[in-house]
Amino acid sequence: MVDAVTYDDVVAAAARLRDVAMRTPLLEAALLNEVAGARVLVKAEMLQKTGAFKLRGAWNRIAQLSDDERARGVLCYSSGNHAQAIAASASLAGTTATVVMPATAPALKVERCKAFGATVVLHDGDRYSMVTRATDIADREGRVLIPPFDHPDIIAGQGTVGLEIAEDMTARDLEPDAVVVPCGGGGLSAGVCLAIHERFPQAALYGVEPAGFDDTKRSLAAGRPVANTPGARTLCDALMVPEPGALTFPINARLLSDVATVTDDEVCHAMAVAFEHLKVVTEPGGAAALAAVLAGKWDLAGKTVVSIASGGNVDPAVFARAIAPQQ
Amino acid sequence: MVDAVTYDDVVAAAARLRDVAMRTPLLEAALLNEVAGARVLVKAEMLQKTGAFKLRGAWNRIAQLSDDERARGVLCYSSGNHAQAIAASASLAGTTATVVMPATAPALKVERCKAFGATVVLHDGDRYSMVTRATDIADREGRVLIPPFDHPDIIAGQGTVGLEIAEDMTARDLEPDAVVVPCGGGGLSAGVCLAIHERFPQAALYGVEPAGFDDTKRSLAAGRPVANTPGARTLCDALMVPEPGALTFPINARLLSDVATVTDDEVCHAMAVAFEHLKVVTEPGGAAALAAVLAGKWDLAGKTVVSIASGGNVDPAVFARAIAPQQ
Repeated sequence: MVDAVTYDDVVAAAARLRDVAMRTPLLEAALLNEVAGARVLVKAEMLQKTGAFKLRGAWNRIAQLSDDERARGVLCYSSGNHAQAIAASASLAGTTATVVMPATAPALKVERCKAFGATVVLHDGDRYSMVTRATDIADREGRVLIPPFDHPDIIAGQGTVGLEIAEDMTARDLEPDAVVVPCGGGGLSAGVCLAIHERFPQAALYGVEPAGFDDTKRSLAAGRPVANTPGARTLCDALMVPEPGALTFPINARLLSDVATVTDDEVCHAMAVAFEHLKVVTEPGGAAALAAVLAGKWDLAGKTVVSIASGGNVDPAVFARAIAPQQ
Repeated sequence: MVDAVTYDDVVAAAARLRDVAMRTPLLEAALLNEVAGARVLVKAEMLQKTGAFKLRGAWNRIAQLSDDERARGVLCYSSGNHAQAIAASASLAGTTATVVMPATAPALKVERCKAFGATVVLHDGDRYSMVTRATDIADREGRVLIPPFDHPDIIAGQGTVGLEIAEDMTARDLEPDAVVVPCGGGGLSAGVCLAIHERFPQAALYGVEPAGFDDTKRSLAAGRPVANTPGARTLCDALMVPEPGALTFPINARLLSDVATVTDDEVCHAMAVAFEHLKVVTEPGGAAALAAVLAGKWDLAGKTVVSIASGGNVDPAVFARAIAPQQ
């Protein structure tokens, strides 16, 4: 079976993103390494424009729209980070965006979508009905629907996170023993796997899901996509996806070494550690990979580990609770 | 009068720091620019190792110690960021550090100094008596006292912040109309002024002090160093210095265009803005420059402004209060 996306697609996406996305740093702190018992480099995608890696895929898709498509505008459904990325990219490209978001999305993400100029439609219902509603609006308004992860341009765009990691590790004469990536629909994970596997084929590739949303883990075990049981809850709103994507799953199935799940408590601890030692703001889903490293989901003692911090769009109250000293 | 430090000293410091300090990014966010009414690039020194720019000066001094001095160890007095920088640099250089800190220093800064391996002496008294005590211990133990700002190596090291700003702005084909820098003892300010003035002589150079600690502002007006009135309070622990330095003042007097003061409320607002739009953690003193920009201390409408965010070592409770939505 041939992947829907290749390493070359990731390289092409990087060229499109050169003047638009920020090249985010790999952060490291001696005290974090001590806490983790490993050398941990954190890819700081909360510093990406719009506060999450999602800008990469969104721009890689929107930059390739035809003039006609651009005139009609775009539409997406998203819990918030993809929506912000679409809103900002549409604005940059001189087109318009409608974003359909769950009514439960963090207030900060909704406000930021509006600030980037998008029309926000809040949807009160489950994810499946949200997708249906988004598709209906796209049909009615003639807008191009840009899915959050299951599209070759999106996967290739997110893969530039992995490409930058590979380039920066090479420049610093470092080799990763493992790269740890948060996994919702699997777009970031698939793109990063393609890039890292090409450049560092010996590196272990680990996915991380929130407890209750371990669809990728169970799908890998089953050998086919398996959906989550509805009704689970997690702080990681960015990783709440019902099932793996049709395009992302085969790539992740082939390249991921393992997938772990993290609890809300483990995620909050990682947010506090990133606050103290790296001085960055991570949202719950953005801290999932670091949470897995800190919780010892794999034996990484003495190894060199890259952990992807995927975003920082978090309401102040949630962040304040996460960093509060434990009683 | 000849400055104690020159642009060439800053360039030499940058070479010493190349493999030790992080080259911190200039962050920008479309929504922050909207809020500010200007193009604002934030030099993210909270991402520097030890969480503040102070590592630069500390390492530039410690890297130049003789073998004999290194064998004797170092000592400093500091409210916390210089202390952490000295502790971490001493550890890297294979020597020992004693740091004298005010008993009122943030708990997080004290803990981090210990974690970096330093011996911490908490001093219960004013800054003058703390300096006397530090000098006594240095004499008794034969340690090299490294002052927090009033030393040529320290000023040159901090100046590398300005050099990186100049290089990165040039690489992006941008020219700053203004560079805004927080001002305590004036080491960062003096170093940055030297670097920016050399590379962008037309740029306005603005200093920022906390209300109640406007010694540099009043000293510039008086034409000679004037001390602060004791007893003032501010959230900006990193900027609580009794009077300008003997070496820093002449440089700042010659090169600073103006100095503004910011209130605790203005600082907290800037911390919240940096949290929301840049996803970084700033301590109160670290947010002072952005606070001055956001509070409109100068007419920067439509201009290109670099604001230096100098550090992110803040207790969680203080940070949580700063980012809490206004009632």
